[in-house]
Amino acid sequence: MQKEIAGWFRQLQNKICLELEKADSKGRFSEDNWERPGGGGGKTRILRNGNIIEKGGVNFSEVFGPATDFLRKQFNESAESFFASGISIVLHPKSPAVPIIHMNTRYLEIGNKSWFGGGIDLTPHYIDKDDARFFHAALKNMCDEFNPEFYPLFKNQADDYFFIPHRNETRGIGGIFYDQLQGTDSFSKDEIFRFVRATGELFAPVYTDLMAKNSEKIFTENEKKWQRLRRGRYVEFNLVYDKGTKFGLETNGRTESILMSLPPQADWEYDYKPEPGSKEAFTLSLLKKGIDWIKKI
Amino acid sequence: MQKEIAGWFRQLQNKICLELEKADSKGRFSEDNWERPGGGGGKTRILRNGNIIEKGGVNFSEVFGPATDFLRKQFNESAESFFASGISIVLHPKSPAVPIIHMNTRYLEIGNKSWFGGGIDLTPHYIDKDDARFFHAALKNMCDEFNPEFYPLFKNQADDYFFIPHRNETRGIGGIFYDQLQGTDSFSKDEIFRFVRATGELFAPVYTDLMAKNSEKIFTENEKKWQRLRRGRYVEFNLVYDKGTKFGLETNGRTESILMSLPPQADWEYDYKPEPGSKEAFTLSLLKKGIDWIKKI
Repeated sequence: MQKEIAGWFRQLQNKICLELEKADSKGRFSEDNWERPGGGGGKTRILRNGNIIEKGGVNFSEVFGPATDFLRKQFNESAESFFASGISIVLHPKSPAVPIIHMNTRYLEIGNKSWFGGGIDLTPHYIDKDDARFFHAALKNMCDEFNPEFYPLFKNQADDYFFIPHRNETRGIGGIFYDQLQGTDSFSKDEIFRFVRATGELFAPVYTDLMAKNSEKIFTENEKKWQRLRRGRYVEFNLVYDKGTKFGLETNGRTESILMSLPPQADWEYDYKPEPGSKEAFTLSLLKKGIDWIKKI
Repeated sequence: MQKEIAGWFRQLQNKICLELEKADSKGRFSEDNWERPGGGGGKTRILRNGNIIEKGGVNFSEVFGPATDFLRKQFNESAESFFASGISIVLHPKSPAVPIIHMNTRYLEIGNKSWFGGGIDLTPHYIDKDDARFFHAALKNMCDEFNPEFYPLFKNQADDYFFIPHRNETRGIGGIFYDQLQGTDSFSKDEIFRFVRATGELFAPVYTDLMAKNSEKIFTENEKKWQRLRRGRYVEFNLVYDKGTKFGLETNGRTESILMSLPPQADWEYDYKPEPGSKEAFTLSLLKKGIDWIKKI
């Protein structure tokens, strides 16, 4: 199945890049091909200074070889070899009215174990309840086609994962997150792969819709400043907590591909507190776990 | 000795803040007093938008109480209580011609063990060999008054500590770094405290000299851009590797005091490479371990 899975990730990268270029209308992805010394490699695609996307990456990788000590310790003591393939996306829009989006999906085979993991989450600089409902409803509808338990389970896992403990804030409005999804008698590996594909297919239509809806809105220098502060939180999450980033840096991954997730610019201001009653305070008040975004709130 | 040590750190904070305000001539430190729920607290002093310093923090803390699980696991399984006091400084100047500086000194007592740790290091956005020599010579002269082995040992430890593995770059030109300095028969705890005091006394005269020498230089928008990229590396070091930051975040320290070390603004640009032969390339070529900055290079 390795070939089929990696092939699918590869075409998803192509498809998503094309759809993002179309929606942005100006930005074009550049491509860097890289090789992993131990086996395999990847294609890093970066878009800079588009009309809507200021800095974005859509990365594909397919790596394999003898199982490293790190992998054995983490996942499977007795494994001799591994195979991993996936796609990883982070888009930082120019406008504070357009949310940051992230998607990551991966397939990992270590010795005789194999599983899928991944997630999508949205980080609006300003939370718009209609957008939040639209985003979560799209995820729920997709999940429900497979199993009605998926959305509530994976939504809670996203709340827990995309969380910044030292700020006591979620990174954004979450989404879905799952890991170590292995095939079972009642839900086969083929079925999981179908679910993974459905998630991947959802990405471009959902995000390009949010781009189109919000990118023409006029914004102020103050809103841009707030965006840079929120980007600072994004940096904190990715460098302090994100498992993919840690894993990549600790296993000598390609630094520029791993850190494509960082924003073009971020600010830190000591003890910044938005004015009570402001749009910024409203957004902060909603950066919490356990919010039902689909219900009218 | 606890009272004496904390009292000394406290007066050092006052002294350094006064001297920095004098050198900056416009910026003034604001102060936040905070209490630690388990015992003790601190004074966080922040200067923003000075003439020379864009964002800087000079923090004092003195915390104590029952030894936490984290401390026991890290340092002393059988300890019942702990005491820690220290000072921590990071200054981000406005001008890319002025280096970023960091100093941290702390005293830790856990059960029947106690020691000092600390360091000073300089992170120029543009390396100036005369400044580098001046900085390292000042540290060496101070160290040599105590023990001729201190400077070479602590300088190497700084090279190893202030290093960003995923970039294969040092953070800057290093300085000195030491940890777990405990009293011995030949070098008593009193003597170590004298060394710690000498290091602390050195900070303000050395840095205000670098401020005065470099802050009037004219800089371009390109140099400012390069400064923001270097600040991005500073963020990467602090959030991914710095032990004080990790320790603080993991032990529920006061987030705003811990993260005062982050710059006011930082940039990330995918796969940025300075032009061969440029000042930026020259600086990058010197971000390496093992350089003898005092020798004419």
